Amino acid sequence: MARIVMKFGGTSVSDLDRIRNVARHVKREVDAGHEVAVVVSAMSGKTNELVNWVQSMPKVAGADASFYDAREYDVIVSSGEQVTSGLLAIALQSMGVDARSWQGWQIPVKTDNAHGAARIQEIDGAEMIRRMGLGQVAVVAGFQGIGPDNRVATLGRGGSDTSAVAIAAAVKADRCDIYTDVDGVYTTDPRIEPKARRMKKIAFEEMLEMASLGAKVLQVRSVELAMVHKVRTFVRSSFVDPDAPGMGDLLNPPGTLICDEEEIVEQEVVTGIAYAKDEAQISLRRLADRPGVSAAIFGPLAESRINVDMIVQNISEDGSRTDMTFTVPSGDVDKALAVLNEQRQTIGFDAIQNESGLAKISVIGIGMRSHAGVAATAFRALADKAINIKAITTSEIKISILIDGAYAELAVRTLHSVYGLDKT
Amino acid sequence: MARIVMKFGGTSVSDLDRIRNVARHVKREVDAGHEVAVVVSAMSGKTNELVNWVQSMPKVAGADASFYDAREYDVIVSSGEQVTSGLLAIALQSMGVDARSWQGWQIPVKTDNAHGAARIQEIDGAEMIRRMGLGQVAVVAGFQGIGPDNRVATLGRGGSDTSAVAIAAAVKADRCDIYTDVDGVYTTDPRIEPKARRMKKIAFEEMLEMASLGAKVLQVRSVELAMVHKVRTFVRSSFVDPDAPGMGDLLNPPGTLICDEEEIVEQEVVTGIAYAKDEAQISLRRLADRPGVSAAIFGPLAESRINVDMIVQNISEDGSRTDMTFTVPSGDVDKALAVLNEQRQTIGFDAIQNESGLAKISVIGIGMRSHAGVAATAFRALADKAINIKAITTSEIKISILIDGAYAELAVRTLHSVYGLDKT
Repeated sequence: MARIVMKFGGTSVSDLDRIRNVARHVKREVDAGHEVAVVVSAMSGKTNELVNWVQSMPKVAGADASFYDAREYDVIVSSGEQVTSGLLAIALQSMGVDARSWQGWQIPVKTDNAHGAARIQEIDGAEMIRRMGLGQVAVVAGFQGIGPDNRVATLGRGGSDTSAVAIAAAVKADRCDIYTDVDGVYTTDPRIEPKARRMKKIAFEEMLEMASLGAKVLQVRSVELAMVHKVRTFVRSSFVDPDAPGMGDLLNPPGTLICDEEEIVEQEVVTGIAYAKDEAQISLRRLADRPGVSAAIFGPLAESRINVDMIVQNISEDGSRTDMTFTVPSGDVDKALAVLNEQRQTIGFDAIQNESGLAKISVIGIGMRSHAGVAATAFRALADKAINIKAITTSEIKISILIDGAYAELAVRTLHSVYGLDKT
Repeated sequence: MARIVMKFGGTSVSDLDRIRNVARHVKREVDAGHEVAVVVSAMSGKTNELVNWVQSMPKVAGADASFYDAREYDVIVSSGEQVTSGLLAIALQSMGVDARSWQGWQIPVKTDNAHGAARIQEIDGAEMIRRMGLGQVAVVAGFQGIGPDNRVATLGRGGSDTSAVAIAAAVKADRCDIYTDVDGVYTTDPRIEPKARRMKKIAFEEMLEMASLGAKVLQVRSVELAMVHKVRTFVRSSFVDPDAPGMGDLLNPPGTLICDEEEIVEQEVVTGIAYAKDEAQISLRRLADRPGVSAAIFGPLAESRINVDMIVQNISEDGSRTDMTFTVPSGDVDKALAVLNEQRQTIGFDAIQNESGLAKISVIGIGMRSHAGVAATAFRALADKAINIKAITTSEIKISILIDGAYAELAVRTLHSVYGLDKT
């Protein structure tokens, strides 16, 4: 007997038939004797429809078209999850499973006051634990809580993953299963490298790097939360027959377990290759090498909501002048250049250069902390394919390389192979 | 300065443009210096969509197709009003009007535990009154409250009218304006009698008779509630230009005021002619005239959910045998006959007769309590047109006559004229 939190995203509950299918997944775990809480998203498309209404509403003659009250946004948008939670509860009851829905304000899931992008502060799981102990499935509307103003507060996009992990922590669940439209986390994108393998386990830290680099399986926030509370999180598919062999396996259900690194006995040196296309590089030449110059560059960019990714600054030769290179999404290049030229006097650079159509390839693995030569292997392999490396940044568990975008797929496949990731 | 509750139904908020139009109606009253609470329904069609989902949900193999949990029904269906309340608050804010949405659980509107058809038990209006006093418009999601189980409870179909009247009573409003797709209550159906006039005022008791007889302007429950709490209720149109002349008139806005009869100085003898078509008559012949026979007939019919309307029993000639006639909707005749034949031994009747395709015409007016000859006028007028009267029932303020359905329109026009209702 275990206590399990199951989370189903929008595509898994997009119509009544899929909600019934979700109910079968839940019933399987209930029949196996587990205590179950389910966290659901809105039916896919529903949140977009509601958000669109909110954004269109203020567009009347003479009104400030951009303004809407985030508290009202939350009232409107949270209704999507509310509907799904009720429907799933009914589906479960019709299969003979005791179930009830819970809205964020009923549990309550207490958040801060940042409507539209609230953060969970506290969840009182006592009543839910008591009812789960009596065999009742808790069907929780994800993405929402209640703020200190006694009003509904939503957690921002992807918040249902965060809800699930937070509920799992609050009810001290043995496992948090994130059901989605993929069946796990892969060593790289299978559309680029068909030999990509589904990982059995991945450490929280690695998953954080994978997620922020475009492996869009889980929201970064939810992985951070899972890491802090050590919530063992399974990524698995909701589109498999709920009663297929192995689906009810308590210890090793099909999917990828995201867990503490201590649980991964034989840690691979490299566990995955991530990539991001459509990157652009901007270089500032012969900057004054003095305190505050970085702030002068990246402050104004942040204020203009330009998302800066890699930042490379080399040690200057003579201690007076240096070069600074960083990447932004290709679509933001013009805006970034305008901001920088405006600040030219303050920053004090000689020249500005840029190049679009680049790709960032990242090699990720907790094991590289204790292994030398991981980076060298990557550089040699890329050199063998005549791929030129434009910039390099590294962290404890990641090496990121900037290359010409035309070579992105080749680089991913090359690195996937050189670290042995395509072998079982 | 007055305190006003404004209620807008589903067709008045069916899309974003109509919600903006509603906001203009509200702004007009705010600009006039009034304190305003608005009660809104779901966008038209939305409640039906949600109800349909609820009813379809349990239809899985092996499940009891008819079962669904009314508490979950309430969670799902109440989301419709939730969305509208948020959107209207945003629309108002964009016009510079301070506003916020209120869900039933936030006010709170406390109900009993009869989920799906809950009754309001108590509304704490203090915080809303305080905020209205500061100039903030309260946008209230209609149709919903919170039960003693701390879960959303809906008031049943048409519950938004009831919400509005209850909120008006709770905040001690000077007036409750029910905005709908008609511009008031008419002396009869204008589709049948183009000379029908919009009444300026109608007493609560008269409106109750009008509503239950098919003048579908207001839910009967809301009129009952308005009568008990003496809430002055205006029925008026939301499709008129919000800034048209007279719309902001505090004492006499265009529409019909439903009020206490004491407020109607010159009471007409007859105020309206209502009708119901597709009635069927069932007669039981030579019943034993003994205690319990009525219960033996109408008990089983009620259990079969057959809605019996007129009931006529004459005094028996010899004290032993009598005839009983009553009406049911035409569609329920076969079911009613089956029920009665099944109970034939218990009831003890000689013969059973029925006739469909009838119409019930009702003459309504509080003034008839103190005026003789009202019924005689009707009978003579109908006789002049050679309309045969099949049955008659009367109450203090109403005379109902059963006739052949083919004569329904003629009878309505004849009675409308004979009581002088087509004269201004």
